[in-house]
Amino acid sequence: MDIKEFVEKSIGQWRSQRSAHHLAFSHFEAVESVIDIEPISQEDASVIELCKASGVDTQQIVAPFKMSWEGQSDWDDGEEILQGSSVLVPVPDPKQPNRGQLLREQGYAETMAATGDYRFLEDGTFVLVTNYDRAAAEEKIWFVNPNVRCRVSLIKTSGGSGVVTASFSSEIRQS
Amino acid sequence: MDIKEFVEKSIGQWRSQRSAHHLAFSHFEAVESVIDIEPISQEDASVIELCKASGVDTQQIVAPFKMSWEGQSDWDDGEEILQGSSVLVPVPDPKQPNRGQLLREQGYAETMAATGDYRFLEDGTFVLVTNYDRAAAEEKIWFVNPNVRCRVSLIKTSGGSGVVTASFSSEIRQS
Repeated sequence: MDIKEFVEKSIGQWRSQRSAHHLAFSHFEAVESVIDIEPISQEDASVIELCKASGVDTQQIVAPFKMSWEGQSDWDDGEEILQGSSVLVPVPDPKQPNRGQLLREQGYAETMAATGDYRFLEDGTFVLVTNYDRAAAEEKIWFVNPNVRCRVSLIKTSGGSGVVTASFSSEIRQS
Repeated sequence: MDIKEFVEKSIGQWRSQRSAHHLAFSHFEAVESVIDIEPISQEDASVIELCKASGVDTQQIVAPFKMSWEGQSDWDDGEEILQGSSVLVPVPDPKQPNRGQLLREQGYAETMAATGDYRFLEDGTFVLVTNYDRAAAEEKIWFVNPNVRCRVSLIKTSGGSGVVTASFSSEIRQS
């Protein structure tokens, strides 16, 4: 698996069920959402801007895409609407095709731009580690079949030892 | 990672939060439980019986253990008490130390004995595939740190293409 193939397999609309476990107080949160993943041009202004801000040559990038989500959480009896979108730009390591960096306009854990390090495991699982100022996020995404993806996200304290939130999404292709 | 080390790291008492996603009807189920994992003797009667029933030489086995769980589900407004225990017996492949079989007295998906095939990914994730008559279960377990385990279980239709239930557990060591 390389990043180009992974992005191609991810393009489409997904219905997502996400459960977040807030570990310190054993709280369960349930989120239902629709996620759209669409390819964008390497010449798109948002891509060029993100590359510039990160000091990345646009010749190095592969398969930029846009992710949009709209969902609803049951946190506090469920009226919170969650929505947003983010441009993501993979920058493969020229020497190791199963590794690279992922630039993103906006992270999950914080609202600022972030650069994560990704790699693929031998079974095709995509592993992304992103370090923020006071936290680190570790995400694993894998395809069970072409129409089902699983995603596990861990938010850790910045030292990396404590896990604050563990969340799991099952994503079913809609189109 | 090999199975002996994995079992050793798993010994103890764990507080588990489990979310099950019943995909066909977008249902969330939340289960809180306590899981005890304890080593048992290779000469324990239950181990010898399980080996015999599976046609496995007791000389081949490594680190048998017993898993017990007691929990509560919010399915149907939450009065269901879940409890049980199972003896598990790893049988490493003599030629490939990162692979083998796992005999278990009792599976999660069915109440009969079952033999699964396990392997470890390069990042230490334990992957177990168990085929039943009309279903297949795929389980991934990994340690985030010595005191936090994640577990993703998928129940598939026997052809393996459809996913019926995807569940995620975050497990925190209590002792």
